[in-house]
Amino acid sequence: MHVQHDQLEVRSHGKGLYEVTDDVQSKIDKSGVRNGTVTVFVQHTSCSIVIMENADPTARRDLEEFFDRLVPEHAAYFTHRSEGSDDMPSHIRMVLTRTSETVPIVDGKMQLGTWQGIFLFEHRRAPHRRKVLITTIGE
Amino acid sequence: MHVQHDQLEVRSHGKGLYEVTDDVQSKIDKSGVRNGTVTVFVQHTSCSIVIMENADPTARRDLEEFFDRLVPEHAAYFTHRSEGSDDMPSHIRMVLTRTSETVPIVDGKMQLGTWQGIFLFEHRRAPHRRKVLITTIGE
Amino acid sequence: MHVQHDQLEVRSHGKGLYEVTDDVQSKIDKSGVRNGTVTVFVQHTSCSIVIMENADPTARRDLEEFFDRLVPEHAAYFTHRSEGSDDMPSHIRMVLTRTSETVPIVDGKMQLGTWQGIFLFEHRRAPHRRKVLITTIGE
Repeated sequence: MHVQHDQLEVRSHGKGLYEVTDDVQSKIDKSGVRNGTVTVFVQHTSCSIVIMENADPTARRDLEEFFDRLVPEHAAYFTHRSEGSDDMPSHIRMVLTRTSETVPIVDGKMQLGTWQGIFLFEHRRAPHRRKVLITTIGE
Repeated sequence: MHVQHDQLEVRSHGKGLYEVTDDVQSKIDKSGVRNGTVTVFVQHTSCSIVIMENADPTARRDLEEFFDRLVPEHAAYFTHRSEGSDDMPSHIRMVLTRTSETVPIVDGKMQLGTWQGIFLFEHRRAPHRRKVLITTIGE
Repeated sequence: MHVQHDQLEVRSHGKGLYEVTDDVQSKIDKSGVRNGTVTVFVQHTSCSIVIMENADPTARRDLEEFFDRLVPEHAAYFTHRSEGSDDMPSHIRMVLTRTSETVPIVDGKMQLGTWQGIFLFEHRRAPHRRKVLITTIGE
């Protein structure tokens, strides 16, 4: 059994989904692990890691629109506003989604379904450099 | 340390929760792993894996009703409609819940609480065959 | 490779977030694991485990207010009411968040970002003793 950690930096430029599937697979290739799991973990509380439909961009746009309506920027009861109107919604959107995903690895390949991709889901409007940790465990 | 992957096919017939707890435990029994974790991962973007209350069916019906109201099928702003009115909501419901669950294994048994069950949460109306991957890691 | 399971009891006194970050790190210290992952799993269906912003208490209060509005206690369509008006909302809030979090461990330390903390998110009003299982896997 073997454990490998790799870092990935994702540069975001506004709210939305940024695919990292190929970057994650590259780290697995490097690790030499053939059977096990990979955990993709983002070290922030204002963006998420999610698995999402990777084929049709309209699905991602509709998802973003849904979240903008579910967690509006200007809710009257928000008191945590120090970093702007997209600050508190970013934490709520993160709690409603996920900080990490764990995917099985078989014969060196992530076992994603045909339409599954791994995405960083950015919840802030300003550009950010996001730190993602990729941990491969297996044999 | 040992890694075992098993496949499970779940046949769904409409929106709702389908329990897989016993199927997952059977795969753990077969693996021979006594201490470790099991990851239950679904290879689709229009259904989810969730842990939910397993005793009272009214809790599951209320949960389904909540999701039907939170993510309505006919939202005017949806553009991703190629597969019907339950298509886009299925992706949103998946992002709001989970693609996998990881559960500790002690002495060969999943350490679920008294009322916890593992369910496939189907978000489409038509019947589907859903592929679930069960990865047991431990000693 | 090594697997260690530890139990943690969290005493909650009403809805809200209870930080367990230091308790989890203590169990990792005890395990001797230097590189791997830790999975924090709660054995209940009416509270959650989430990673959340740990610096500003107003962020946590706004989060609680958001969930109280998203999943109101007295929805007319709820039929699962045997344990009171906060019963069914507690299960929905759990499904919308998470039952476990998995965090990478490097050089014996959880790799949380600067503002990330691990919290038990209690969804019931009455005091509870919550059982959390901490599973450390690594070398």
